[in-house]
Amino acid sequence: MDNTEPRMRWWGWGEDGNDGPVKPGARAMLTEACGWPEDVDNPPVALEDVHLPVNALPVSARERFESAVGSAYVRDDHATRVSHAAGRSYPDLVRLRSGDVPFAPDAVLYPASSQEVDELLAICHDEHIAVVPFGGGTSVVGGIDAFRPGFDSCICISLARLDQILSIDEESLTATVQAGVFGPDLEKKLQAKGFTLGHFPQSFEFSTVGGWVATRSAGQQSTGYGRIDENVFGLRCSTPTGVVELDTIPATAAGPNPRQVFVGSEGTLGIITEATLRIKRQPEATLPDAFFFPDFASGAAALREMEQSGLHPDIARLSDINETAFGLAQLGSGLQRKGLLAYLRARGIKTPCLMALRYDGRKPEAKARKAAGRSIAKNHNGIALGGAPETMWEKHRFSTPYLRDTLLTHGMLVDTMETSAPWSKIDELHESIRVEMEDALRAQGTPGFVLCHISHLYTAGCSLYFTVFAQQKADDVMAQWKALKSAAGDAMIAGGATSTHHHGCGADHAPWMFQENGDLWVRMLRAAKAEVDPAGIMNPGKLMNGPEAL
Amino acid sequence: MDNTEPRMRWWGWGEDGNDGPVKPGARAMLTEACGWPEDVDNPPVALEDVHLPVNALPVSARERFESAVGSAYVRDDHATRVSHAAGRSYPDLVRLRSGDVPFAPDAVLYPASSQEVDELLAICHDEHIAVVPFGGGTSVVGGIDAFRPGFDSCICISLARLDQILSIDEESLTATVQAGVFGPDLEKKLQAKGFTLGHFPQSFEFSTVGGWVATRSAGQQSTGYGRIDENVFGLRCSTPTGVVELDTIPATAAGPNPRQVFVGSEGTLGIITEATLRIKRQPEATLPDAFFFPDFASGAAALREMEQSGLHPDIARLSDINETAFGLAQLGSGLQRKGLLAYLRARGIKTPCLMALRYDGRKPEAKARKAAGRSIAKNHNGIALGGAPETMWEKHRFSTPYLRDTLLTHGMLVDTMETSAPWSKIDELHESIRVEMEDALRAQGTPGFVLCHISHLYTAGCSLYFTVFAQQKADDVMAQWKALKSAAGDAMIAGGATSTHHHGCGADHAPWMFQENGDLWVRMLRAAKAEVDPAGIMNPGKLMNGPEAL
Repeated sequence: MDNTEPRMRWWGWGEDGNDGPVKPGARAMLTEACGWPEDVDNPPVALEDVHLPVNALPVSARERFESAVGSAYVRDDHATRVSHAAGRSYPDLVRLRSGDVPFAPDAVLYPASSQEVDELLAICHDEHIAVVPFGGGTSVVGGIDAFRPGFDSCICISLARLDQILSIDEESLTATVQAGVFGPDLEKKLQAKGFTLGHFPQSFEFSTVGGWVATRSAGQQSTGYGRIDENVFGLRCSTPTGVVELDTIPATAAGPNPRQVFVGSEGTLGIITEATLRIKRQPEATLPDAFFFPDFASGAAALREMEQSGLHPDIARLSDINETAFGLAQLGSGLQRKGLLAYLRARGIKTPCLMALRYDGRKPEAKARKAAGRSIAKNHNGIALGGAPETMWEKHRFSTPYLRDTLLTHGMLVDTMETSAPWSKIDELHESIRVEMEDALRAQGTPGFVLCHISHLYTAGCSLYFTVFAQQKADDVMAQWKALKSAAGDAMIAGGATSTHHHGCGADHAPWMFQENGDLWVRMLRAAKAEVDPAGIMNPGKLMNGPEAL
Repeated sequence: MDNTEPRMRWWGWGEDGNDGPVKPGARAMLTEACGWPEDVDNPPVALEDVHLPVNALPVSARERFESAVGSAYVRDDHATRVSHAAGRSYPDLVRLRSGDVPFAPDAVLYPASSQEVDELLAICHDEHIAVVPFGGGTSVVGGIDAFRPGFDSCICISLARLDQILSIDEESLTATVQAGVFGPDLEKKLQAKGFTLGHFPQSFEFSTVGGWVATRSAGQQSTGYGRIDENVFGLRCSTPTGVVELDTIPATAAGPNPRQVFVGSEGTLGIITEATLRIKRQPEATLPDAFFFPDFASGAAALREMEQSGLHPDIARLSDINETAFGLAQLGSGLQRKGLLAYLRARGIKTPCLMALRYDGRKPEAKARKAAGRSIAKNHNGIALGGAPETMWEKHRFSTPYLRDTLLTHGMLVDTMETSAPWSKIDELHESIRVEMEDALRAQGTPGFVLCHISHLYTAGCSLYFTVFAQQKADDVMAQWKALKSAAGDAMIAGGATSTHHHGCGADHAPWMFQENGDLWVRMLRAAKAEVDPAGIMNPGKLMNGPEAL
């Protein structure tokens, strides 16, 4: 497959053929909590019916682009423009499916090297054209929406052809990788040599190294393998006014570490074209385990003890009552589920919380950690389920986003919100964020159903990941969503939590990033940006220049 | 003791009564390598003979300061000015001892709260007065030299009265601490509750939390307990134009993490008045171990395997041949040393490299890690020495800086330089940095003697810490030192290493920080600074505005 072919269908998640139904049990739960819209079958419009803004790319600029990357790699056909117009946030999906797409790049450019990226940015700076960098297009926060505030034209630079692993330093356990390498391609090549990056965000199949680095991604194994920001030792970033090249350095005291400013810059400073990442040797063993807990708090206390005692599971997830119930309804086989629930009821647990764990490493140590984890879980009233639930979760772990497409077709709103906070605030935040979202949805006349899990552990705290369902408010889908989003963001900030643990800021989280870090920080970021991007062409309307600030 | 009393003697390291002689064996080594100056006895001048710049603090500003913090806390007596004029770099010591001190604050202010710091910075901004923040005054890179480029007056803000642990979150294992708390005071209070920060830089006895955070400090146990930049979850920074308050957040994807910009800002953006740090429960066991290796490369390979296999010693140090020999000569008892060396010779090792390790944690796990470490060491031809050498090193670990004072009195140059790099470059850098420093000193007509050790391990690489000796070139001490410093910095940059692993930038490392990170980054930093400190009053001449840039 030519890497310039989009990997995702233009209107939703992933590839055709993976959509499944909402299973009867899950549908019953949603119907009870939210109602279920009658007879809604709202598929996406046909591709040719998608309405895009008029292509405003000046001929002179187009000629310069063609001479930089070759005319085959300056594309502005309808399909290419649509497939690079947006990410995969809820508003993105709503707009794409409706065919009314107010933002789209005039053209998509496919440079073949870091130097071609440099050249393209210099041209765009010169021609005053907005630039949206594009990796896999999986942003769920409006991070790649093709805004062009103050610009006549906007182009998208796809990193699809920067798809090489440049080198592996087996002694230092690092790999230098081009930004456009997709998750599965990277892991395949690393694993063939006995290594792994261990970075598995839910978007793994369709997202790229550059996207991970630019958005401070965390993956489902990041408790064990580290967040991407902990795993970047060097990088190269093209900016409109020059190149920043940061050597591979394990640790430094040479002032603020620039790596930590480019990591998370979301294309607003430039385009990260290469990064040097920590890799690990593939583990000899990966030992799954799972438990039911009588409530969320006791499961969270067990996870806290595991992490703080240095036991350090590589995967650690705890679903709350709602998420456990929904997961069992949607994924579990009916018969097994009934037997299990009967067994739990006999032990006094009516509404269990599922914890899934995995221990990676040499077999003896992994076994010892698993045994220690069991002992901690049991002290907190966990009931051991064996490894199967973790294994089953792993098998399906990349499929959940497809459910969103199905639900959208049936007239349901689905979104996810995530945060992190100190352990001492987690129980309260779990409650307050859910309540605020439920209240906001009720106020819209569309009662919600909120699931939550913990998926990333730190000694000082953990993440909380919420999934929320409601009926779409057909007469004003966006206002309904904004009310929900505001309620969640406000509750996070009020509770001393971050506005985003791993989705990034993009356009959608910018207002809360401002609140979280304060005006002075935003001004500092903007001033730093103005040095490398004085015309403001880089990914406008995102992060420190979020749409609220425009 | 009133915390506003200086803890260090004004002309050198620490407190009187800790200076020891250069032992005969060590002196013989230095004499052989460098010569030893005849009859030099060059003690510091008397305090009253120190020449300071004229106090230029305007009366109006003084009155405003007094009304902010009280007249007892605006001090400009000779002793106070001298003791806040400089850090403890080699040039600092040379200048202080000579009595010719070209930089000094006009006054030292001692605010009692974060809000008083805010107020003082607003006054200094208003009055256009340069500000040097002062924690413990241990900078070895010219980080607190009281420069006043472009300013008529310069004051020093001591954090000595911000000496409280504000809170301990035992659930989240974090402590919120005021910036002026000294290492021993912090550890005493934490340990009384069963916790430790585990941060033990060589300056531990005389340095402060704020200094550690501002300079990206790493301590002797940072391999196990983490560098300070890994352990800061929240902070409060006063700037001339406002306050930045960053909540305690374990991890975030809300854009570039501002914590990582204030950490390492070295007082150039503002004054960090509080920080929330990771703490740990005190370990049940601390198990020492030590080995001799036949050469540096095999010891380094063993450390690499230990770190990359996840064994993760909490203390890990490997001295090269020169440092091992010098350490045995200076510290070891003659008899034991001879017996040991005879034993080694019988095993074919004439010039051993000493490795010291410590494993902290629950006893069974620490024991298992120690056993695994022994097995790795033996596979790399390490000869087990038992725990005594590590214990002895630990006993003396804060005393080495006193030796520098003794050597200066005897007309010797002593300095230390440190870096970090990927494992694949370590052997070459160990060689090339040493050779470049030796060549530079030889060119000055003063042959040098260079020691080196590894003291911080990462999966991707490690630190290298050099100590260098030579005769002082009496007719131009500073030119000699600059030639040495340049040779070291150039060799680090040429070899793809960082210009400083944990000493920070200050004035001395700024030129290589610029080379390491590039002009664009320096411009970005300066632009960010201009937002919070438009008049440039904060610690001028340091970091991104190092003296080369003035």
